[in-house]
Amino acid sequence: MSEYDRKSIEMHDRLHGKLSVESKIPLKTRDDLSTAYTPGVAAVCNEIHQHPERVFDLTIKRNTVAIVSDGSAILGLGNLGAEASIPVMEGKAILFKAFADIDGFPICLRTQDADEIVRTVRAIAPVFGGINLEDISAPRCFEIEEQLQDLGIPVFHDDQHGTAIVTHAALLNALKVAGKDLADCKIVFNGSGASAIACSKLILSAGENGYTSKVGDIVLCDSKGIIHKDRKDLNPYKAELSQVTNREGLQGGLADAIRGADVFIGLSMANLVSQDMVRSMKPHPIILAMANPDPEIMPDLAREAGAAVVGTGRSDFPNQINNVLAFPGTFRGALDAGAKVINDEMKLAASEALAAEVIEPSPERILPDPLDKTVAEHIGAAVAEAAKRTGVCR
Amino acid sequence: MSEYDRKSIEMHDRLHGKLSVESKIPLKTRDDLSTAYTPGVAAVCNEIHQHPERVFDLTIKRNTVAIVSDGSAILGLGNLGAEASIPVMEGKAILFKAFADIDGFPICLRTQDADEIVRTVRAIAPVFGGINLEDISAPRCFEIEEQLQDLGIPVFHDDQHGTAIVTHAALLNALKVAGKDLADCKIVFNGSGASAIACSKLILSAGENGYTSKVGDIVLCDSKGIIHKDRKDLNPYKAELSQVTNREGLQGGLADAIRGADVFIGLSMANLVSQDMVRSMKPHPIILAMANPDPEIMPDLAREAGAAVVGTGRSDFPNQINNVLAFPGTFRGALDAGAKVINDEMKLAASEALAAEVIEPSPERILPDPLDKTVAEHIGAAVAEAAKRTGVCR
Repeated sequence: MSEYDRKSIEMHDRLHGKLSVESKIPLKTRDDLSTAYTPGVAAVCNEIHQHPERVFDLTIKRNTVAIVSDGSAILGLGNLGAEASIPVMEGKAILFKAFADIDGFPICLRTQDADEIVRTVRAIAPVFGGINLEDISAPRCFEIEEQLQDLGIPVFHDDQHGTAIVTHAALLNALKVAGKDLADCKIVFNGSGASAIACSKLILSAGENGYTSKVGDIVLCDSKGIIHKDRKDLNPYKAELSQVTNREGLQGGLADAIRGADVFIGLSMANLVSQDMVRSMKPHPIILAMANPDPEIMPDLAREAGAAVVGTGRSDFPNQINNVLAFPGTFRGALDAGAKVINDEMKLAASEALAAEVIEPSPERILPDPLDKTVAEHIGAAVAEAAKRTGVCR
Repeated sequence: MSEYDRKSIEMHDRLHGKLSVESKIPLKTRDDLSTAYTPGVAAVCNEIHQHPERVFDLTIKRNTVAIVSDGSAILGLGNLGAEASIPVMEGKAILFKAFADIDGFPICLRTQDADEIVRTVRAIAPVFGGINLEDISAPRCFEIEEQLQDLGIPVFHDDQHGTAIVTHAALLNALKVAGKDLADCKIVFNGSGASAIACSKLILSAGENGYTSKVGDIVLCDSKGIIHKDRKDLNPYKAELSQVTNREGLQGGLADAIRGADVFIGLSMANLVSQDMVRSMKPHPIILAMANPDPEIMPDLAREAGAAVVGTGRSDFPNQINNVLAFPGTFRGALDAGAKVINDEMKLAASEALAAEVIEPSPERILPDPLDKTVAEHIGAAVAEAAKRTGVCR
């Protein structure tokens, strides 16, 4: 057990969890009771019944986000179930609070059936202004998120889109550092789970929406090798991507994919990338190796093999690519704008705003510090603007 | 619109609801992030996965209660739906906090189907240490509560049992004031909804469990008159009670029921009890007229007609019979004891502890002040003791 493990268990044991629910008002006099509760509260109920949209003014809904998990894919630990997911969801809630002043509340579900999850989220939605899906395994996470897009409040699977936003921002600044243009780049993904698929889609959508430029090409690899049109073993989400990626029709393994590529994005497992693979890439390659806790290649090895920029998921190396840079500001903007969804334009606005936080990107600094509390505010403003511009607000 | 109505809407509008979710720990350094969130939190998840009972130590579960409503019976307002119920459920949460330091969170359901409600509460249960059902109309409220008793955490419908506990406590002290013995008393209920049925059952259970004494007789009336064995129009809950109440087999209306009674308990509608009815009761009758906002008979009229003690639901008369005296302490005790249910013994312990808060009951004071914050603590201790004694703890 590491030092952090011991410290973390000790802290959780002592505090009995990390959240408390507090009242915004004192409750000292009969007058307080009559205003906050009965009889006064009846008028508030009637007001909402008569003018349903007033629920966003008169209740906690406008600032409250459900952090929903079924515990099926907790961090890198796997399927440990609902109860074991609570500490992570509480953690997300304190990040929401610290970085975006959002009231997050953990909803950990004792079901892993996609339809039942959808039904449950619909049933509990009234009190929430947004739904952050978390640590739900693929491919159910896609299905669940898709089915909930008609809920009238933003439903956002952070493992997909939070990762996509922050990776895209890292990529934009890394390209500046390496002197590369996205339109000429070949990007290789290793890992084709929820986050890799969402990242690919966001990068592909960029050129189509007037943001940044269109990517040269993307090649995805999963545990069986390069994803191409002729593979018969692809789930519908990979199959869809096989139609718009890998335009050269590459086949083979990761080593075949990475040869001649400009960018490697790893969302897979430790140590899958060798120095020779890095050397086989175009000059000044970009390596975003985000496997946790150990990256696909250690930064010093990647740099030694010629990488112009290296990012990982870890806080003890430069260029930490951490979701906390993305989700608080993205939800802040969506809630402030009264957005009914978080669309691609809003995600791209978030990643461009995040990239713009670093005035002069350098090999050691392509992203701001995860603890920088001004980031979420700037992302929020950009996301709110994009929501209004694209007409998805209440 | 009354002054409280205006003040209440203004306050809710200004604050955007009454609750916030706060972090118990600062999040200022990388070290904080590593302990509260990744990587440290993974050890906490594993610990819970390996030792499931540790969820009560390491997360918010042990002190967190879901306040669940479907908005079908909001206060006296009727079926206004989930969104309109939020201000009441937020209000319950601030009462939980102020009186028992419990973290309550509103879960307002966009379904009024009993099976769907049961399924949803089961699905979201992992993060909660208790479920407070609220403002769910009868008879679904009985069915929902019954089906959820196997959840392993207390599930308590406050409109039933909170009301029953506080009414029973009021009754115990009123009997002392009036110099009556429960064993000789005939108690007439007007209104046979969820709260009246729960009150009757609690009073009936008292004698059977060694608490206080057995009641003389109870007669319930609904909108069609006295409930008796031969009525064919009774729902299963009223039918069950018809077997153990009204032993004389009375038939007729409220005026027939109340004649010669010692106690009137009203959970019905304004002005249904006349001074003549009070005069037809035994000497020194007890009147607990809890219809809201206007009682079944106004206190001055009841006293003028000979009532020894009068209680109502209102804060502007003496003897306010208010649930807030019961539910915070009852849950406090159940959570502290690790109780898996809230059984009759625990409810009776709560009502006896509540009654004992008033050392010398008088006609103007049969219950403590609803704002007295020591009450919940004393009730909690009594409820926890009863839970341990009856062997319902984890």
